Amino acid sequence: MKTVLIKEDILSRNNERAKDVRALTKTKNVFYVNVMSSPGAGKTTLLKKLIPLLSEYRIGVIEADIDSEKDALDVERATGVRTIQMHTGGACHITCQMSMEALEALGLDGLDVVFLENIGNLVCPAEFDTGANMNLVLTSVPEGDDKPLKYPLMFEVASAVAVTKTDVCPVFDFDREKAVANIRKRNAGADLFFVCAKTGEGIPELAEYLKKRIASEVGHE
Amino acid sequence: MKTVLIKEDILSRNNERAKDVRALTKTKNVFYVNVMSSPGAGKTTLLKKLIPLLSEYRIGVIEADIDSEKDALDVERATGVRTIQMHTGGACHITCQMSMEALEALGLDGLDVVFLENIGNLVCPAEFDTGANMNLVLTSVPEGDDKPLKYPLMFEVASAVAVTKTDVCPVFDFDREKAVANIRKRNAGADLFFVCAKTGEGIPELAEYLKKRIASEVGHE
Repeated sequence: MKTVLIKEDILSRNNERAKDVRALTKTKNVFYVNVMSSPGAGKTTLLKKLIPLLSEYRIGVIEADIDSEKDALDVERATGVRTIQMHTGGACHITCQMSMEALEALGLDGLDVVFLENIGNLVCPAEFDTGANMNLVLTSVPEGDDKPLKYPLMFEVASAVAVTKTDVCPVFDFDREKAVANIRKRNAGADLFFVCAKTGEGIPELAEYLKKRIASEVGHE
Repeated sequence: MKTVLIKEDILSRNNERAKDVRALTKTKNVFYVNVMSSPGAGKTTLLKKLIPLLSEYRIGVIEADIDSEKDALDVERATGVRTIQMHTGGACHITCQMSMEALEALGLDGLDVVFLENIGNLVCPAEFDTGANMNLVLTSVPEGDDKPLKYPLMFEVASAVAVTKTDVCPVFDFDREKAVANIRKRNAGADLFFVCAKTGEGIPELAEYLKKRIASEVGHE
């Protein structure tokens, strides 16, 4: 029981801190996107394909990992945008305190949009509000169409869900309709996309969707 | 700082409890395997293929999930072995307390081997000793060959690592040698397997390996 109370306390303090992050990004007129998924669902690869379609914005990327600089180097090399690697020292999610420190380390001056690539984990990151304007949740075809049934909160907190690696749907007997139905069980309102970094499917549509949200929430056109 | 201390306290209490689990399984002469991986790496599918190759043992399975009964129903239907579904109420890993309760709920009388399918999570479950005789860690080809670089602890605590879904190596440009080198950076001694539930690759070898461990650790032939 004690553990639960500690956790509730941590979560309530985290949510308090989220207000500070939102105040900061609002002052700086920055649209902040928290990207979450299982390990290897394609967060880094999607960002590399998506960022060039958002060339009208000045973009920054925060890569969070337990270890290695691989993702930050990949994104920086592929897109040329301002990127920092953040190490969590073993932690399985990004708290709002970490989110704030990462935004400060990245520096928001001269940026319109910031993507946070969260730790690859379909459980814990969903519990911690990072103060972002939206949560973009990825779920990959090889993981199977049943993930929303088994990891409910991640899908509940999603503003948008992108099913990735759609080119391998036939290989994995992945049923798109079943996937949509399972996501809808957890979240009736999330915007849904089917994307593939290899074939390019759905990436322009996801970019257009982000542009609309950016325009309506921080006024960048 | 406080959070870290709480965590250390939780972990040290967990490790104390692991001794009780090991005492229980030793008394009951049961070999207990903790199976861990990312969501959708193929834990359930592998168990369904592996269990029929271990037909000389009386097997039990504990399926841990945040929600849904899907995996327990799948395994029970496919293998006919004693299976229970355990819900963690949102928790992202199995503590030793949960492990003990699940073993008691399953009942060890008349069993030789128990598999625990942990929550799909490449981070947190690695921190919590479940009291198992061994940790079998799966990492799937679609996740990419770099996972040991980014999720170090999971590979460090592995007794054996099985790379799953090897039939799609060409589709995902997965480099087996690089994967082995990355696993070896984290763990020089783990036994390594390449397996595929669809083609059957590596599953007999994994079954033979388990038989040897079962024979040497609990004396079942």
